[in-house]
Amino acid sequence: MNDPAQATLTEIATALAGGAVSSEELTRDCLARAHRLNPVLNCFLRIEDEAALAAARRADELRATGRRLGPLHGVPIAIKDMFYDPARETSSGSAIRRGFRGDATAVALARLQAAGAIVLGALNMTEFALGPTGHNPFYGACRNPWNPAHIAGGSSSGSGAAVAARIAYGTLGSDTGGSIRLPAAVNGILGLKPTYGRVPRTGAMPLSWSIDHVGPLARTAADLARLLRVIAGHDADDPGASRRPVPDYEAEAAGSIEGLRIGIPQDFFFDAVEPAVQTVIEAALAMLERAGARRVAVTVPAAQHLTELGRAVVYSEAAALHGHWLRTRPADYSPQVRARIATGVAIPAAAYAEALQLRAPLLRAFCREALGECDLLVTPALAIEVPTLEHTDVGGGASMWTTIARLLRTLAPFNYLGVPALALPVGFAPGGLPVGLQLVGRPFAEGRLLQVAAEYQRHTDWHERLPPYH
Amino acid sequence: MNDPAQATLTEIATALAGGAVSSEELTRDCLARAHRLNPVLNCFLRIEDEAALAAARRADELRATGRRLGPLHGVPIAIKDMFYDPARETSSGSAIRRGFRGDATAVALARLQAAGAIVLGALNMTEFALGPTGHNPFYGACRNPWNPAHIAGGSSSGSGAAVAARIAYGTLGSDTGGSIRLPAAVNGILGLKPTYGRVPRTGAMPLSWSIDHVGPLARTAADLARLLRVIAGHDADDPGASRRPVPDYEAEAAGSIEGLRIGIPQDFFFDAVEPAVQTVIEAALAMLERAGARRVAVTVPAAQHLTELGRAVVYSEAAALHGHWLRTRPADYSPQVRARIATGVAIPAAAYAEALQLRAPLLRAFCREALGECDLLVTPALAIEVPTLEHTDVGGGASMWTTIARLLRTLAPFNYLGVPALALPVGFAPGGLPVGLQLVGRPFAEGRLLQVAAEYQRHTDWHERLPPYH
Repeated sequence: MNDPAQATLTEIATALAGGAVSSEELTRDCLARAHRLNPVLNCFLRIEDEAALAAARRADELRATGRRLGPLHGVPIAIKDMFYDPARETSSGSAIRRGFRGDATAVALARLQAAGAIVLGALNMTEFALGPTGHNPFYGACRNPWNPAHIAGGSSSGSGAAVAARIAYGTLGSDTGGSIRLPAAVNGILGLKPTYGRVPRTGAMPLSWSIDHVGPLARTAADLARLLRVIAGHDADDPGASRRPVPDYEAEAAGSIEGLRIGIPQDFFFDAVEPAVQTVIEAALAMLERAGARRVAVTVPAAQHLTELGRAVVYSEAAALHGHWLRTRPADYSPQVRARIATGVAIPAAAYAEALQLRAPLLRAFCREALGECDLLVTPALAIEVPTLEHTDVGGGASMWTTIARLLRTLAPFNYLGVPALALPVGFAPGGLPVGLQLVGRPFAEGRLLQVAAEYQRHTDWHERLPPYH
Repeated sequence: MNDPAQATLTEIATALAGGAVSSEELTRDCLARAHRLNPVLNCFLRIEDEAALAAARRADELRATGRRLGPLHGVPIAIKDMFYDPARETSSGSAIRRGFRGDATAVALARLQAAGAIVLGALNMTEFALGPTGHNPFYGACRNPWNPAHIAGGSSSGSGAAVAARIAYGTLGSDTGGSIRLPAAVNGILGLKPTYGRVPRTGAMPLSWSIDHVGPLARTAADLARLLRVIAGHDADDPGASRRPVPDYEAEAAGSIEGLRIGIPQDFFFDAVEPAVQTVIEAALAMLERAGARRVAVTVPAAQHLTELGRAVVYSEAAALHGHWLRTRPADYSPQVRARIATGVAIPAAAYAEALQLRAPLLRAFCREALGECDLLVTPALAIEVPTLEHTDVGGGASMWTTIARLLRTLAPFNYLGVPALALPVGFAPGGLPVGLQLVGRPFAEGRLLQVAAEYQRHTDWHERLPPYH
């Protein structure tokens, strides 16, 4: 086969299944890249050579006897350092949880491993998944493989960078306000926040149980589809988990988009898009039109309030979850993350209750009004060029907060609504950093988003471009 | 047939179906009793003669042509004044909602009417369903038919009194902290708070969407079973509604209780039971043992915290729902109810969030530990003799709050847990007021509770005793 480092997750799974490459050699290559690149990118908190190679050898042995664990047999992946596993420590990017070991393996991680995936190690992330830039005062910032002076996004910083740098074929992240989609967008890969309840959070560090989503990052729509199918499905221990059957996302992603109506929000989501970003997004929309889709102007009800409502929920629940540590170990937080969680302490219960209560009617209004005349929405994933780490560093006060608010502006509304949203790389801004489009669908219509992403990728080759650090 | 006024709901439904009595004459009798007794009991806020007689005549006409609407065809019932209906005003026991008309009929009410029930009118209730005594400063207190100096309980005060006084064959109530079970217990009838999600709340005045339950009151287990089967079942507009199929509760209620294990909580729920009440409860348990059941000692995890956790949820959500009126029309509340809702304004979101979050694990612990070795639990429905209206009147300050806390002590924990709980009359205290037992089961095991209640009623005749006011 061609260079395995250039293969996508589904391609490498096929090569592994056919014996064109062994999991051990593949894993060895991935680990070598991880060790070579991590001093610059800092995308791994722990590279787990021994465990990964042992698992890879086991996968090869099984294959030799004709056994196949599942659709990820022997494929090297990596996970955000917040999925518990008794076999490894899980820091959640924090000092407080340094050395912590969970009692049981997180359900999404266990499903990946049961499907044959090889875990290369634990990925960098923002402290307690709270922050979009990828800075981390305890473990160092994660850096962007397209330009290490720029952010890798957050909170799933390492999950974005490790895929873009061709270290892992796919990664697992979590998204409470954009934490999968932003790292995907700024690193030029795909990231999917599935419908609320689609992927169980059991065994994943909770930040806000009403708004947390677990999802995959990878380089192609087919890769995402495969990862999603593996991790999706009911789990009795997650009160938010849905009982809906899991469809064959790879099959759903294969169809044509001829006649598809793409909704373009007329307000809020396209406000204040930087011209260089707008040009790239316009080209992507034109590409989708050439592939048979057509544009429809739509309005998103209460668009400007969705993030604020979501924040009331997230910070209330985060304050509840962190209450004990806030009182007993305040000095073990970074001042920034402590301050963010502390905003939740001042929220009155009635405001939180109201935000919870408005969620179902606002979702109904969104489905009826914004999606009534179209099949999916598009928005920029990020309306500005990817900022530098320096520009978004701590201590920036109000200006830092403004930038952070811009980073999540188009993403966070869909955490509150709970609808599926996918970040798709569609080109580069003049500074050389990626530009991403966001696709947003009806509840449980992940297949439709994957289909549009797959069609776009058939006509373009952004996903084959290599970043300087790979 | 014998005196129709003495018949139970299921008996009168059979008599109506067989033509032994017409719905019109039955409804006329019920309305006459309502008008005769209401000056003393004040259980109705509005007696709807015309509408009821028109509906009864329609039911008789349909029967004459061989059509049967459902299992309540022609049966006179009444509803707590908080179920919306464009055809009538719905005060929710308040001054603020005086003259209010809902846009659509409440789902539970619509289901009763679709099954053929005749609505006699709207029943008294505590202002906004917030309070257990049945006092109402705007419409006057509802009084107990066993002794009008005593409370009819709350908040579904009229729903309890109207059945006990033989005015209605069954009534519809709501229960957020005991508001169905307490009026059932103090009036000597049965009341069922179904599992959370079993009966949709759509179109019922919300007090706390996470803890509100809608359910029936009636004189026998078979009556409750029939009413529950009619009102239970999914509704897309209630986010809490369950999709579980609705079983045939009347069939489930018919079985024997031979070998059934009855859990007796060893702490909290039997603390501070007044001796006269304890004697009656002990006799009821002995009766169930003679019918084949046996007692098992059990412990309810975190029993003493469940009410407090539920209060954090109820008052947070009540404060959210009432926020606008609290700011714009504070003087239109009674000072007592305004003060209760205002406690919610001071609750921090993190406390509310924590209470929500602990609910699923505490329910799991309850099912595993309290119900692990038995089929259902029993507790007193009310551990004290039914107090007088005077003793529980407003302005009592701390002592009033203490009594109120005792009134709901054994009931409110099961609102937070969301498990089904049934109040069953089991005799009388020396003062002549009823004593009630509470049966508590696993989620969606209403049939089991009805079965035990039915068996108990086969061996006793408390439900045939007539109160002085009937």
